Amino acid sequence: MGSTTAASIREAIAGENVSAWLRSVRDPAERAHQLAKLSSTELRALGTLLDRHGGTDLFESIDDELAARLLEAMPARDAADLVDVLDLDHAAHVLRDIKPGPREQLLSGLPQARAEALRGLLRWPEDSVAAHMVPEALTVRPDMSVGGAVAALRDDAATLRSDSRTGAYVYVTDEDNRLLGVVAFRDLVLSDPQDTVSALTNRDVLSVSPLTDAEVAAQALMDHNLVAVPVVDDGNRLLGMLTENTAADITSEEVTEDAERQGGSEPLEVPYLRASPWLLWRKRIGWLLLLFVAEAYTGTVLRHFEEEMEAVVALAFFIPLLIGTGGNTGTQITTTLVRAMATGQVRLRDVPAVLLKEMSTGMMIALTMALAALIRAWMLGVGPEITLTVCLTVAAIVLWSSFVASILPPVLKKCRVDPAVVSAPMIATIVDGTGLIIYFMIAHATLSQLQGL
Amino acid sequence: MGSTTAASIREAIAGENVSAWLRSVRDPAERAHQLAKLSSTELRALGTLLDRHGGTDLFESIDDELAARLLEAMPARDAADLVDVLDLDHAAHVLRDIKPGPREQLLSGLPQARAEALRGLLRWPEDSVAAHMVPEALTVRPDMSVGGAVAALRDDAATLRSDSRTGAYVYVTDEDNRLLGVVAFRDLVLSDPQDTVSALTNRDVLSVSPLTDAEVAAQALMDHNLVAVPVVDDGNRLLGMLTENTAADITSEEVTEDAERQGGSEPLEVPYLRASPWLLWRKRIGWLLLLFVAEAYTGTVLRHFEEEMEAVVALAFFIPLLIGTGGNTGTQITTTLVRAMATGQVRLRDVPAVLLKEMSTGMMIALTMALAALIRAWMLGVGPEITLTVCLTVAAIVLWSSFVASILPPVLKKCRVDPAVVSAPMIATIVDGTGLIIYFMIAHATLSQLQGL
Repeated sequence: MGSTTAASIREAIAGENVSAWLRSVRDPAERAHQLAKLSSTELRALGTLLDRHGGTDLFESIDDELAARLLEAMPARDAADLVDVLDLDHAAHVLRDIKPGPREQLLSGLPQARAEALRGLLRWPEDSVAAHMVPEALTVRPDMSVGGAVAALRDDAATLRSDSRTGAYVYVTDEDNRLLGVVAFRDLVLSDPQDTVSALTNRDVLSVSPLTDAEVAAQALMDHNLVAVPVVDDGNRLLGMLTENTAADITSEEVTEDAERQGGSEPLEVPYLRASPWLLWRKRIGWLLLLFVAEAYTGTVLRHFEEEMEAVVALAFFIPLLIGTGGNTGTQITTTLVRAMATGQVRLRDVPAVLLKEMSTGMMIALTMALAALIRAWMLGVGPEITLTVCLTVAAIVLWSSFVASILPPVLKKCRVDPAVVSAPMIATIVDGTGLIIYFMIAHATLSQLQGL
Repeated sequence: MGSTTAASIREAIAGENVSAWLRSVRDPAERAHQLAKLSSTELRALGTLLDRHGGTDLFESIDDELAARLLEAMPARDAADLVDVLDLDHAAHVLRDIKPGPREQLLSGLPQARAEALRGLLRWPEDSVAAHMVPEALTVRPDMSVGGAVAALRDDAATLRSDSRTGAYVYVTDEDNRLLGVVAFRDLVLSDPQDTVSALTNRDVLSVSPLTDAEVAAQALMDHNLVAVPVVDDGNRLLGMLTENTAADITSEEVTEDAERQGGSEPLEVPYLRASPWLLWRKRIGWLLLLFVAEAYTGTVLRHFEEEMEAVVALAFFIPLLIGTGGNTGTQITTTLVRAMATGQVRLRDVPAVLLKEMSTGMMIALTMALAALIRAWMLGVGPEITLTVCLTVAAIVLWSSFVASILPPVLKKCRVDPAVVSAPMIATIVDGTGLIIYFMIAHATLSQLQGL
């Protein structure tokens, strides 16, 4: 998959021969990859070279944001022609990434009915499943014969523009467009033409309302192993459907955003290779500064225990090791837990079970790490008292970190904050300051030199 | 989606009324969730209560590992009956999770042809796309009329057991089963029965060989927005197909494994709620100990600079803040980069571009963080020399961490190690020890008190 001697889009733009590039580079990943590296000047040049035909081909394999940039750069007439031939849902998505002014201009260049259909889709909130649905579906009536349904579908199909992605199901509706069930095209092909549609209809259909969160609907589609989920209004009337391909895209984007949050930065919202250093800086610096301020607390803690450190400078040797181990233990838990919550495996009511599981595991890890700390302190030759302090501290920090890491994601979820913001840096920062307090408190209790302080 | 007053599987097992539970709890996520919390004793009890009918219903919504445990607990006759009615690919997956002895026993209870088909599937390596394919596909010949093809498919369908998931495409093959192209069921329904199949055939078909890595094939299916990808042998003969649902499952499992690696532990391989503390300990302790040993290096560094710390104890105040900031900067980069590499957005040949981008961003972040450090040092009142040391160090550590974090994932990938192992804890550990060396080197150069040491 992917060739090492792929034709270059840069050369194609320079040579004004984009269609040859489109013919020779068929792999969508390779296309997206080459396009991601173009400068905005090159993108504009590419836009001016695209016609409706090349645009349709290209738009199949690129993300909506890039498609929007290209549309903006294309001659107005070609852009309108291209939007006119795209699938409705695809067109709506690309248009969402264009500023209202130019978007309205583009819409006004379209046939009236097409523009209205697009405006209808654009009115749904961006996160809703309705904003992601294919607003067209083939329907049949339950009392039709299979042969009659096939004939009716043939007539309907001529007037619809839905592409092959909408192809697996036909919805069964009554005369008011209320959803009754679903029939697979496959069953229409494989059944006796004399059967009624009703006999083939699966009436146990999962449907969603238009304002359902798109991620929730996508997850439900995947959980139920479906190819599409119908979107119905309050009166159970069919508005459109969410297809499996769209659901997979929604889920993949969400996974990328979660990964970025887990790494302690804001989601980039554009493909990494197209993100400028300036954008990366903006997405990262907020969390870095916040964590810096939180972490600065460690300096206050250490200054508070300045006398202790002056009395026993060996205590300082173990600071990075102890707080590092606490951060690592917590990070292991939060990453596993956040993912389990994102896939719906762990819910809020499981918090007691999670806590029990993690504290039991934490106990075993605390013992193991205390043993490791014993060996390390012995190797550094710091004497029995400091060795004891270090062993006790590592066990206490592991348990404390396990507790914080198990409780924080569900607490945030309860407060309607995405638990994915509990990043490795955040856990490390929380455990660093508090871990140091634990360290010096234990040191006070165990070290004879510190008894007077 | 999901109800708060769902019937309990525990009560259903106790009351020996599992079929009532299956009827009342239809949501696969809710089912999986309840089942994940059962003890192994309860799972065995559930197995003995399952018949072929309930098993088929239940197996649609649970993971293969759990299905395997249930099969083992079921009476031999019922287990064989159940395996007989499952889809072939599904059955093969569940059987993979059963030990060879009991598996062979189960297979010998099946009809000869069924057992042979399953053994054939089980022979493919677990990571190959062939191990995940549906080994049945409906095929037609190019010279058939659409009407003739539909009639032929009706006859074939009676002998095949492939379920609705295999339903979107029909493959077009020659008399030696060589793949010529693909026709959508939809097109068969919507075309004139007098047309030839040849006219509807899409010949530009992406196919994969059976030993292709399953994740690569799944990614290709998603990239190309396909519903299925045919698997063909060296002679282009059709062996089966990878369906979109299976591809989505493969990708989701890989995402979970990557998340777990990124958190610094080994993938659990079972759903989180079913993982025992003992299993969690085993998956986590290896990395924790390895990182502990690596982090212990910080103690050696600090002991080496013991005199410096005794001379200027204020240097110790900034240790957690400086190394923490280094770890955070690196973690932001690796999580973004590892995800971009996993989705194919960033490839090995992009390393120079990545490095340029990250070092430019790192420069901007270094300046910002140095300013923040200036304010913090001024607040702690540590004097101009230490302030200068801290500001220079934070800038140097940010740049160093950016470099390590940008270069490590691609280097590992080049060495054929999954870059997802570059976890937040690993980056933090690498930066901690090296960051301290940078810190004390800069202190030596800037602090007059340390000139003599």
